[in-house]
Amino acid sequence: MRKIRRLGGEPLNNSRPRSIHGETSASKLLQIVGFKNSGKTTLTESLIRTALDLGFRTSAIKHHGHGGAPDLPPPATDASRLFRAGAASSIVVGGEVALLQVRQRQESDRIDDLNTLIRYTENCADPDLILIEGFKNERHPKIVLLRSLEDWTSLRSLPKIELIVTANEDLQAEVTAQEHADEKSKLPIFSRRQSEDIAAWFTDWLKGDHHESL
Amino acid sequence: MRKIRRLGGEPLNNSRPRSIHGETSASKLLQIVGFKNSGKTTLTESLIRTALDLGFRTSAIKHHGHGGAPDLPPPATDASRLFRAGAASSIVVGGEVALLQVRQRQESDRIDDLNTLIRYTENCADPDLILIEGFKNERHPKIVLLRSLEDWTSLRSLPKIELIVTANEDLQAEVTAQEHADEKSKLPIFSRRQSEDIAAWFTDWLKGDHHESL
Repeated sequence: MRKIRRLGGEPLNNSRPRSIHGETSASKLLQIVGFKNSGKTTLTESLIRTALDLGFRTSAIKHHGHGGAPDLPPPATDASRLFRAGAASSIVVGGEVALLQVRQRQESDRIDDLNTLIRYTENCADPDLILIEGFKNERHPKIVLLRSLEDWTSLRSLPKIELIVTANEDLQAEVTAQEHADEKSKLPIFSRRQSEDIAAWFTDWLKGDHHESL
Repeated sequence: MRKIRRLGGEPLNNSRPRSIHGETSASKLLQIVGFKNSGKTTLTESLIRTALDLGFRTSAIKHHGHGGAPDLPPPATDASRLFRAGAASSIVVGGEVALLQVRQRQESDRIDDLNTLIRYTENCADPDLILIEGFKNERHPKIVLLRSLEDWTSLRSLPKIELIVTANEDLQAEVTAQEHADEKSKLPIFSRRQSEDIAAWFTDWLKGDHHESL
């Protein structure tokens, strides 16, 4: 199911039907998970750049955590005025960018349902790849970022871990000693400074057949 | 097709199918058009509040004009970092709000196509009413805001004008003299200070059967 749309800069025309019913995902999905300040956004930024260089049209979905709403545009801007007046949603479009704000309808209709957000993304941007920051209990392939051995104790049972990235070399050595001791696990483990190794792993992953249905 | 979902505060359950194929709109649509600094956003804000008071779930779509991109969240925020890294789209969700940024794919696939934006809105927010600021040549019912008689000369041929709102009483008298002279036109003409009259007209309009197919 891999497809590269932007070889040479211009997107190729592609008439693949969009999965507007949310039943299947036509995009590759990769999660970047870890606790606060483990470097998720920095890694996600660099993966976006790598994927773009390889010609993959790439979207991002991020959970802002449980501390409240994401940073919205400044209150005096028109986008914010319409949304703050109470609109269920607002779109402001111009200069080849659309900015959409949506308010959760009711408690039972959670706006942070990942499948819904994937559906929004596919509807609006039709990407080849969606990088998902957070949502750690979801069952998509994932990179786990570790600040400490305790982080690993908390996170090691997450589904579909494909790569571990540690905060430093010492931690890399400790986690490697634990994981590779019995030779059952071949999970790659890098320190976050090994940016070239991480990019090479990600490139292999992108070029592999990791397509999954939701 | 009118339906009021939020009488008493809580939305009623409603299983109406969403128009995800963009062929029909299940929402009432009303445009607010006029030249720069004619008061479009201020009027749209007040219409949103009136519609909410009446129990209508209301969304807004605004064209930022031809001066560039809308005001985005501050550059250092996570939403902006992912989008500025080059993502085709980014979503940041938290605190019952989702913030979505989408980049136009290519020149021929315009992101400011109104039908596309209506489809995004219905997909994400499923409103009863969509207020559309700008897009003056589109063929939906509209309120025209006038700063001068010259504005009226430029705008009078727009399709489906239902209300005129002028910048002041003098202009209201002049436009009324022109329009109602031959008694052919019964188009209501208010000055922007007549906020109660505008709200009353809008309430009647909302309660009428103005549903249209796209």
